[in-house]
Amino acid sequence: MTMPAVDFFYEFASTYSYPAAMRIGAVAEAAGVSLRWRPFLLGPIFTEAGWTTSPFNLILAKGRNMWRDLERTTEAMGLPFRRPDPFPQNSLLAARIATALPDDGKRAAFSKQVYRAEFGEGLSIADAEVLGAILKRLGVEPAPLIVAAGSEANKQALRATTDEAKAKGLYGAPSIVTADGELFWGNDRIEQAVEWAKTHA
Amino acid sequence: MTMPAVDFFYEFASTYSYPAAMRIGAVAEAAGVSLRWRPFLLGPIFTEAGWTTSPFNLILAKGRNMWRDLERTTEAMGLPFRRPDPFPQNSLLAARIATALPDDGKRAAFSKQVYRAEFGEGLSIADAEVLGAILKRLGVEPAPLIVAAGSEANKQALRATTDEAKAKGLYGAPSIVTADGELFWGNDRIEQAVEWAKTHA
Repeated sequence: MTMPAVDFFYEFASTYSYPAAMRIGAVAEAAGVSLRWRPFLLGPIFTEAGWTTSPFNLILAKGRNMWRDLERTTEAMGLPFRRPDPFPQNSLLAARIATALPDDGKRAAFSKQVYRAEFGEGLSIADAEVLGAILKRLGVEPAPLIVAAGSEANKQALRATTDEAKAKGLYGAPSIVTADGELFWGNDRIEQAVEWAKTHA
Repeated sequence: MTMPAVDFFYEFASTYSYPAAMRIGAVAEAAGVSLRWRPFLLGPIFTEAGWTTSPFNLILAKGRNMWRDLERTTEAMGLPFRRPDPFPQNSLLAARIATALPDDGKRAAFSKQVYRAEFGEGLSIADAEVLGAILKRLGVEPAPLIVAAGSEANKQALRATTDEAKAKGLYGAPSIVTADGELFWGNDRIEQAVEWAKTHA
């Protein structure tokens, strides 16, 4: 039997993707489930739903409680928290860089540091210097990778992931999809998704 | 020190209010937190948000996953599940009856049976006979209670609860509010809400 695997679909502008990215690795590892890190863009999916910005900005009461809930969630996890301004951040460059990185640990490490910069330190993740500094800390030379991130092939790869996410029924992030197509939405569903993958492998 | 208490705001048409209603009593009791059962109407709040029906009907992918997730959730709890048709159900009469019942156990028992009829058996909760049969099983004579439920004073009491829910920042159901005004949204937050009430009493 091969090791069960799940696809972890995340969007860099997504608030609950922050705690999810920080804890999903440990949950999956403890269960013996392997993890594919799948950065994608929610923007095109929201646009099709008729939204011009995050639903957290459209429904004020929902947004207020989300920020408070995220504060409680990160505090319980011992994670730093700062509300990014503006919200949502432009996540395109970060998503392209993450796509260009190999999914062998580097992509996960980069992604977690992007979330920490954005939601823990209040830095702009649209800023190539912020992202470049993260790459450098990971031992990746920024300039060539940022060039590779902007190549047609890499842009197309990110579009393909977004199309795949949509085809799998995603409408928000984070989402986890098992090999048999079961979709789980949200930081609150990580345990169930991993358990499902384990018992339905 | 008085016993800590939380307000459990629920809407009879709300899907996740079903598992929440079925388990919140046990969670609160185990923690030594008392529970106020607060039926309210989401309709007026959704209307202000510009929605003409449930967001689960407006965003198809979101609705699909919600039904699947509810199926998984109820299965894990050993609860029967049937998708109501139509969805959402008209919850006005059920909410008025629940409001007219005293919050001494009768309101909770009635509410849980309404959820079971709606989401477990596929019955119409807009049907006075369905609700009357539930009242009878609880030892309450249906006719006078349904009359009381339609009185101006009782309608006004339900409107006041809905106004209070809105003032407390509610935008969905189920929601739990602690004495110090902390708002928790969703069946997934019952444990945290009760824990909060216990540690912030």
